[in-house]
Amino acid sequence: MTGSLVIAGLGPGAEALVTPEVSYALAQATDVAGYIPYVARVTERPGLRLHPSDNRAEIDRSRYALEMALAGRHVVVVSSGDPGVFAMAAAVFEAVEAGPAEWRDLEIRVLPGITAMLAAAARAGAPLGHDFCAINLSDNLKPWALIEKRLRLAAEADFAMAFYNPRSKSRPEGFAKTLQILRESCNDARPVIFARAVSTPEEEIHVVPLTNCKPEMADMRTMVLVGSSTTRIIQRTGAPIVYTPRSVET
Amino acid sequence: MTGSLVIAGLGPGAEALVTPEVSYALAQATDVAGYIPYVARVTERPGLRLHPSDNRAEIDRSRYALEMALAGRHVVVVSSGDPGVFAMAAAVFEAVEAGPAEWRDLEIRVLPGITAMLAAAARAGAPLGHDFCAINLSDNLKPWALIEKRLRLAAEADFAMAFYNPRSKSRPEGFAKTLQILRESCNDARPVIFARAVSTPEEEIHVVPLTNCKPEMADMRTMVLVGSSTTRIIQRTGAPIVYTPRSVET
Repeated sequence: MTGSLVIAGLGPGAEALVTPEVSYALAQATDVAGYIPYVARVTERPGLRLHPSDNRAEIDRSRYALEMALAGRHVVVVSSGDPGVFAMAAAVFEAVEAGPAEWRDLEIRVLPGITAMLAAAARAGAPLGHDFCAINLSDNLKPWALIEKRLRLAAEADFAMAFYNPRSKSRPEGFAKTLQILRESCNDARPVIFARAVSTPEEEIHVVPLTNCKPEMADMRTMVLVGSSTTRIIQRTGAPIVYTPRSVET
Repeated sequence: MTGSLVIAGLGPGAEALVTPEVSYALAQATDVAGYIPYVARVTERPGLRLHPSDNRAEIDRSRYALEMALAGRHVVVVSSGDPGVFAMAAAVFEAVEAGPAEWRDLEIRVLPGITAMLAAAARAGAPLGHDFCAINLSDNLKPWALIEKRLRLAAEADFAMAFYNPRSKSRPEGFAKTLQILRESCNDARPVIFARAVSTPEEEIHVVPLTNCKPEMADMRTMVLVGSSTTRIIQRTGAPIVYTPRSVET
């Protein structure tokens, strides 16, 4: 009996953003594992076992999923957004590398999804239309000094920036420091997009000049996008359009 | 009669990676415009007009689509991958900003898609599992000196990197220079992923240590991903798994 493990991205929240590939994998699964709110998005059906687990239990969840696959189950580990971007795929492969040899030869597939920065950018216009970087602002798993170094170099490179996990109750100060670093490196009018709960009923999008940004504008459900020096705002009757042109003048 | 304009991402090639949101928009459209091979992916039906156009005609195509929307048509501009990542969304907004005032108040929506770097990363494992950047290596619309500056700063920041448009017949030398810059900044064993035509029948994935990379390993259908200093390779019976762990040691 040969099992399999699929690590699937559910996108940012709306069902209309789940790829058919992922829907098909869920329809074939015998077991679905993941963080509680993501497993809650999977439709129950006879023969499907759901294995919700808590946040920060990524390695335990990965090992459990690998054990089930080795036992012949068809397991889908669900992730929000894209599983390869600050999500479950790296955690599963960490577990594979540290685990027993037979885990390496399991059939393991990663199915991409719409990651939050793409959904947020689409709502605002095209702020990531030119070169950009993506930085996880959480210092749970890396030193703050590295985040700060990357922010300064990203500003020097004039990348647009996408920030995942900008701020949580247990880390209120990192995003305040991030804004301070940006103010030292970027012009005051640099557009910053706060995109909260994109594609869900709670969605809120705000475009704020850097000089007016406040740390409390972000929480753990917020994606923050920062324009490059060439990013433009088109004012109009409704929400403004923020986009980064494809060209940079010589 | 009120028209609308949707800029939709078709993903990297496979129909299973087109979101239901995009399929629905195509089903509602009166007109679809885009680069010839992307329009060819849209199913013909009575009442739908297809407007394929050549590559590098992005601004003309955008203006034509905006004019049709203003005339009351429901227009979808199709893009490969995600329209906001080195694709059609920025071109449409450039046209809006430079165009007549009434274009600004059209209903314009961007529908995200699976961009090539996410599909390529998923096939290789999770090489973008930690902080990363995305750089368009084409110098058609920006000076080469800016690309070089960004490459050096990205290496200094220890980002994983995703390169779009690495090499074309008219630009054979840029990717050779890119490899040289990476060799000056990164260790020889740094894994580089060449992901060609991901999710299509012509898909090819190769993982090559930086020291063995050759410019001709990439063409315009290739996405190139470069690991960071912490990226790891899991050897196994089949293709190796390349992933970047979530943690960086303090």
